[in-house]
Amino acid sequence: MASNPLVSDRDVQFLLEEVLDLGRLLRLPAFADHNQETIELYLASCRRLAREVLFPAYKPMDEEPSYLEEDGAVRAHPLMHVMYPSLVGLGLISATRPAEVGGQALPQTIGLLASVYLMAANLSATGYLGLTSGAARLIESFGTDTLKERFLPKMYGGEWTGTMALTEPQAGSSLTDVKTRATPAGGYYLIEGSKVFISGGDHDLVPNIVHLTLARIDGAPLGIKGVSLFAIPKRREEGARLVDNDVITAGVFKKVGWRGIPSVALNFGERGDCRGWLVGEPHQGIKCMFQMMNEARLMVGANAVATASVAYHQSVAYATERPQGRPFTSKDPAAPQVPIIEHADVRRMLLRQKAIVEGGLGLLAQTAYFADVAEHETDAETRKRARLLLDLLTPIAKSFPAEAGQESNSLSVQIHGGYGYTSEFYPEAWWRDQRLNAIHEGTTGIQGFDLLGRKVVAEEGAAFLFLNEEIGRALSAARSAGVDPTWGDAVAKALEEIGRLTLHLGGLGLSGQVESMMAHSHDYLNAMSLLVVSWIWLQQATAAHKGLKERPEHADFYRGKLQAAQYWIRTELPKVNHLVRLAEEVEASYLEMRPEWF
Amino acid sequence: MASNPLVSDRDVQFLLEEVLDLGRLLRLPAFADHNQETIELYLASCRRLAREVLFPAYKPMDEEPSYLEEDGAVRAHPLMHVMYPSLVGLGLISATRPAEVGGQALPQTIGLLASVYLMAANLSATGYLGLTSGAARLIESFGTDTLKERFLPKMYGGEWTGTMALTEPQAGSSLTDVKTRATPAGGYYLIEGSKVFISGGDHDLVPNIVHLTLARIDGAPLGIKGVSLFAIPKRREEGARLVDNDVITAGVFKKVGWRGIPSVALNFGERGDCRGWLVGEPHQGIKCMFQMMNEARLMVGANAVATASVAYHQSVAYATERPQGRPFTSKDPAAPQVPIIEHADVRRMLLRQKAIVEGGLGLLAQTAYFADVAEHETDAETRKRARLLLDLLTPIAKSFPAEAGQESNSLSVQIHGGYGYTSEFYPEAWWRDQRLNAIHEGTTGIQGFDLLGRKVVAEEGAAFLFLNEEIGRALSAARSAGVDPTWGDAVAKALEEIGRLTLHLGGLGLSGQVESMMAHSHDYLNAMSLLVVSWIWLQQATAAHKGLKERPEHADFYRGKLQAAQYWIRTELPKVNHLVRLAEEVEASYLEMRPEWF
Repeated sequence: MASNPLVSDRDVQFLLEEVLDLGRLLRLPAFADHNQETIELYLASCRRLAREVLFPAYKPMDEEPSYLEEDGAVRAHPLMHVMYPSLVGLGLISATRPAEVGGQALPQTIGLLASVYLMAANLSATGYLGLTSGAARLIESFGTDTLKERFLPKMYGGEWTGTMALTEPQAGSSLTDVKTRATPAGGYYLIEGSKVFISGGDHDLVPNIVHLTLARIDGAPLGIKGVSLFAIPKRREEGARLVDNDVITAGVFKKVGWRGIPSVALNFGERGDCRGWLVGEPHQGIKCMFQMMNEARLMVGANAVATASVAYHQSVAYATERPQGRPFTSKDPAAPQVPIIEHADVRRMLLRQKAIVEGGLGLLAQTAYFADVAEHETDAETRKRARLLLDLLTPIAKSFPAEAGQESNSLSVQIHGGYGYTSEFYPEAWWRDQRLNAIHEGTTGIQGFDLLGRKVVAEEGAAFLFLNEEIGRALSAARSAGVDPTWGDAVAKALEEIGRLTLHLGGLGLSGQVESMMAHSHDYLNAMSLLVVSWIWLQQATAAHKGLKERPEHADFYRGKLQAAQYWIRTELPKVNHLVRLAEEVEASYLEMRPEWF
Repeated sequence: MASNPLVSDRDVQFLLEEVLDLGRLLRLPAFADHNQETIELYLASCRRLAREVLFPAYKPMDEEPSYLEEDGAVRAHPLMHVMYPSLVGLGLISATRPAEVGGQALPQTIGLLASVYLMAANLSATGYLGLTSGAARLIESFGTDTLKERFLPKMYGGEWTGTMALTEPQAGSSLTDVKTRATPAGGYYLIEGSKVFISGGDHDLVPNIVHLTLARIDGAPLGIKGVSLFAIPKRREEGARLVDNDVITAGVFKKVGWRGIPSVALNFGERGDCRGWLVGEPHQGIKCMFQMMNEARLMVGANAVATASVAYHQSVAYATERPQGRPFTSKDPAAPQVPIIEHADVRRMLLRQKAIVEGGLGLLAQTAYFADVAEHETDAETRKRARLLLDLLTPIAKSFPAEAGQESNSLSVQIHGGYGYTSEFYPEAWWRDQRLNAIHEGTTGIQGFDLLGRKVVAEEGAAFLFLNEEIGRALSAARSAGVDPTWGDAVAKALEEIGRLTLHLGGLGLSGQVESMMAHSHDYLNAMSLLVVSWIWLQQATAAHKGLKERPEHADFYRGKLQAAQYWIRTELPKVNHLVRLAEEVEASYLEMRPEWF
């Protein structure tokens, strides 16, 4: 297989320097320690590790997943043991955290783009560190000083890893129904319950794993308002020793993909000796968790873009090298076969992948940029505006790459033909990996509920108005730069249609017709995704037009951008109209469908 | 897991008795030996074997695929050895062949519907017999009497199996570039060459395997017109003995799905001692192969529908049993969780699966019905009309279930949430199986070329005119039966749009602008699929309206049909308009894209 760049360096540079305003971020006090050079250094280290170390380990890890061994242990893949110190050495776990907790205070925009290389190289390997980062972050934000002292240095330093333990077998996505019990026992709680699908929930990379776990304190109110957050280590410290904390691995799931990191079922307190420490206030567990949710969901979006990206680059290489067939207009069997990239239908599949991958990456970078502004801008109004945009874009940045990524990865299999269906080639493995992203950290259905039921109606629709402004600004910029005006018109029309729909659905909600309002949340999410990704492509087309004038030596790159933008805006965006109509009319086929009619 | 019906018996009965006119078929002389009862008997045997024997063996066969053992042998799964005699005993291999060759002379419509049960239960197990059937059929149609005597009884009797050996490593889909050599040697040919992706190409179920192989006789013209068809057995008869025929299994592909039947790479004539027998005239190999192609492609469509069907039934069962969450309007945490089928977004996913599965099955049954008419009607004009319709519908009946089936199977994974991503549950395995159907027997891209470049332009567009008549008839019937007139209007409008587009594209072709004509063959195929499946749903809605009046005790069944028809016609059919516009305008994003711009 040709060497795979995983992610296009030129595209990352384009996003940072020509589309987003990295300079503005770097002028913020929070990033005072950074400049172009330190940023480039971090990106370069991640790229190198991704290409030279993580990627070669991907296939062996996919082929030999961890399992529950007879002695009850779960062992990480031998290559994971080799790579782990390098990954920790990058400072990945705390890259975007402030220096006070040992971090590098990098912008999230940079942290995310750098992680995409590592994820594209080896999703599972990167997962160990991403999960630790998320878990530590919860303790950093909500833990007492004692907890921080006990856990943070070890977790951010990679001596211990972390997990998020939310899901229970009987509750699935319904966190309201969490029933793991926490009984106060003076300074700590005794925990009893079961969790499933805990990624990185057991392994032997490090001596300890800290599970950030949702549980219900005895006597807590029913429902979501009685759920608290706990740190539950696999082993607890007694003096200088680590002793068993009664956390049992009940099983390892046989997964379709992400096979390099075990997902386990955990039982807490089978012997009545499992201790957990409350993180944050009692009964505020869901609230704590949700403050981290944006970041976790962006990371899933990044996983999805990364997995689509590595497969896209493989597709392009294969299509360029693989001779097969001849053009419609030249069927002379004596002529040599042409590379399949010469066939228009193959270029269709490649351009579709490019539009999804680079549109998705642009969306994630834009969303992370808002996250940086929301956290670090000096002006409170600007922060608030960015926060609302971040909230609005998050379900889209999570679900669009996860859903469109499945199609993109499937196209990569298709381009490889019969070989694509064999594990001699990589695309099928990435296609399997991708399938999870629409399920974990909130299914696509849940993202639709979140977007329509929460995000667009928050603060009387303020977020949607801000998005309107952002798109309006992009429209003017596109016009000035000389982008084909029909593209801008199409984006403006879709924005108007979705705006009208949003008002209409908000009205249904206000008048108590919640079922009708939410009936087409899936179509609403799709329509918004088409619009938002078109906005991203319009920005990129604008930058490409400028680039063509100013840096003609990069013309191939900019031409490719313009074709992908055109493809997306002409082929995909017009689908908004029909989706809007379905939601507006509350088309009732499945609403009225009854269980006994299936 | 709840017992899985695999395919709905009621739906099969509905198609045969209420939608298609089975009685008319049974009145044809070719089917004189059959009546309602014999048909029902055959269906019942297949159902029983599928449910009781094949289905329980599915998972073990998926989990332990065959491999190339150290002694060079490929062994079928032990359960396959157990099942094989029962499958042969059904008469599956020659079910639709005439009595002269030992067949049961069943209509293809019945053969196909019965096979769908077996495929839904265990795709791989059924594959062994389907491939043998196709290979034997080639010898039956084109072989000399000597070849027929030598091979047919053994193949139709299941003593030997058969394969189709088309693909070569350097040629893939481009059969023009086949280069396996056949050197005349008096009565037979010496064969030398390599083939890949030969399903069922090696195993130990029977002592011999006959490979129907494309090869080029020495001195043959270049290209497709120099390719001949050969029967090449794994072992040849010398006197009463079977001796090695120099067919070597070079490897077994590690496949994503269909793991119960090995797909192998074969080398013919490594020792210069591989004998093949010409089937049909020299240089007519592709023509022979293509006469069988309709049937082979319908079988792939059937595989796809079957795989979507078994997963759909599993989805409905799971959604009915799995409690999780509460309705939007009742968030009381003290109330019990509701089965997820109560959530509109889950019903959306289920209804979409139903529309794809039952629409796909209806399409296949309709297409097979035309095949029966085309072969057995007494009137030549009627046969010819049915033949053209069969030819037109085949690429759609192959690719629609394969493509929409992927989405349907993916929805089944989604409905199972985190569990769907584990191999403790079945949906992920069916999702993997489904992925092949868009690749083998001509990729979806090739189906698009076939439909637009060959089928709709054949005989001056006669097939499209006949389709127009068929849809026109369905529109009148729907009106008379009281089907919502807006549904018929929508179908009529799409038909008109596609008709206009077809004329336009045909005109481009006639004026030599073949690249422009074919640029959107993919969109054309999609648009035609949406229209054709809407026509199928309109027929079913018509029958459901009648059924509601005449058999109110089946109201649940008919209501379900009407909801699915409404869903398809309101949600999917309107997408035709945009696809037609892209093709009409020859939207040029990927046409103009250059390899160096990716």
